[in-house]
Amino acid sequence: MSNTNTLYQHGTLALLVPGLLDGTITMKDLLSHGDTGIGTGEGLDGELIILDGTPYQVDSHGNVNLVDSNFTLPFANSHFADYAEMLEVEDISRNNLQKQITDAAKSSNTFYSVKITGTFKNIKTRAVQKSSQPYQSLAKTAENQSIFTKDSVEGTLLSYYSPAIFDGVAVGGFHSHLMSDEHDFGGHILSFESVSGVVSFQQFDNLEQHLPTDNKEYMEHDFSNDNILDDVHNAEG
Amino acid sequence: MSNTNTLYQHGTLALLVPGLLDGTITMKDLLSHGDTGIGTGEGLDGELIILDGTPYQVDSHGNVNLVDSNFTLPFANSHFADYAEMLEVEDISRNNLQKQITDAAKSSNTFYSVKITGTFKNIKTRAVQKSSQPYQSLAKTAENQSIFTKDSVEGTLLSYYSPAIFDGVAVGGFHSHLMSDEHDFGGHILSFESVSGVVSFQQFDNLEQHLPTDNKEYMEHDFSNDNILDDVHNAEG
Repeated sequence: MSNTNTLYQHGTLALLVPGLLDGTITMKDLLSHGDTGIGTGEGLDGELIILDGTPYQVDSHGNVNLVDSNFTLPFANSHFADYAEMLEVEDISRNNLQKQITDAAKSSNTFYSVKITGTFKNIKTRAVQKSSQPYQSLAKTAENQSIFTKDSVEGTLLSYYSPAIFDGVAVGGFHSHLMSDEHDFGGHILSFESVSGVVSFQQFDNLEQHLPTDNKEYMEHDFSNDNILDDVHNAEG
Repeated sequence: MSNTNTLYQHGTLALLVPGLLDGTITMKDLLSHGDTGIGTGEGLDGELIILDGTPYQVDSHGNVNLVDSNFTLPFANSHFADYAEMLEVEDISRNNLQKQITDAAKSSNTFYSVKITGTFKNIKTRAVQKSSQPYQSLAKTAENQSIFTKDSVEGTLLSYYSPAIFDGVAVGGFHSHLMSDEHDFGGHILSFESVSGVVSFQQFDNLEQHLPTDNKEYMEHDFSNDNILDDVHNAEG
């Protein structure tokens, strides 16, 4: 039954903007749509990454926690892994890496995932601190974030690429989280100087977009005054 | 296996803008995702509507044709019908109808379908004339359209509503096609003065968005210079 051509998405990036941060899917349900993924917890509770069916959270203290099946998320992606090796890279900058991936993938008009296992130099990540009801906007909530740096870390970068026309629904371009091999460092990737390692690639034909229709606040929210694209680019950039 | 909570979409509204009009899904495949739907044929070949599992085309001569399973489409929606009666309306204008539906549905942040069976007064529809390779832009192609009017027609309006954040991916707001009970009049609805009849409603939790990843022209197209939202609103308005 597992469909490796489909990227599953729960919620939209847009709903985070006005602070619709209720957890509206359980990790158990998210894992039923994939063994690989990224997301954030209720109230922007840290940065999540699912690798080989195991979900990890990097919290705002920098701790890496195993995530239980009742943990809930407002926004997340998952898919069933079927990566093929695409590139080997050696001390390549993030910009050059993205260019090489984009050129090799030739998939800018569809969704795909990239997984990079290797050594990252001078990497900077962040994890947002969980907030509680009443939630503030994404911009306000994301002010309470911790930034983590490391000179060198061996780990796995998991990234999803979304076509520009889906910007706001998803994160247009690349959206990347990291987990170290030692499970002691990770988060939403802000920058790194270089990486050496193996780049794998998996293309999708389908986006399965699930919306939190059982959430009264989401369903009743008037998005017409939210400045979706500017705010998400400030917060996710 | 049929999932009445999911709206299936093949292609995007955006890909029509630069004239990526190859048929990239067969009617047979589209029908495997639903017994109800709307779309257009390769080269913008008329206006399609699927009712109770039967696909009809209104071509640019105003003829209503049964569509065979090998017919291909660049852009289409389908779903498995499970409507519930929502409203009865009597001589209501299109604007008032949309307001009543929006107020009753309370579903502006998710996808839904509306089906209206009744009598439409002073209705105006259009059907685009099929163009061939090399295709021109949506705006140019849609100039070759026929407009049909009728003082009074008994028929079925099938409409899909998409949330604003999906504008460009789908048709933001309502997108409506019509088929007369006599199967002698229909098309993409431009306007009507009033309608009397029964309004049925079906809400979706999921959008299953399929992209034509096997189509080289789609995959290689550079969308960055296309003025997607302006052009689709001119053509679909």
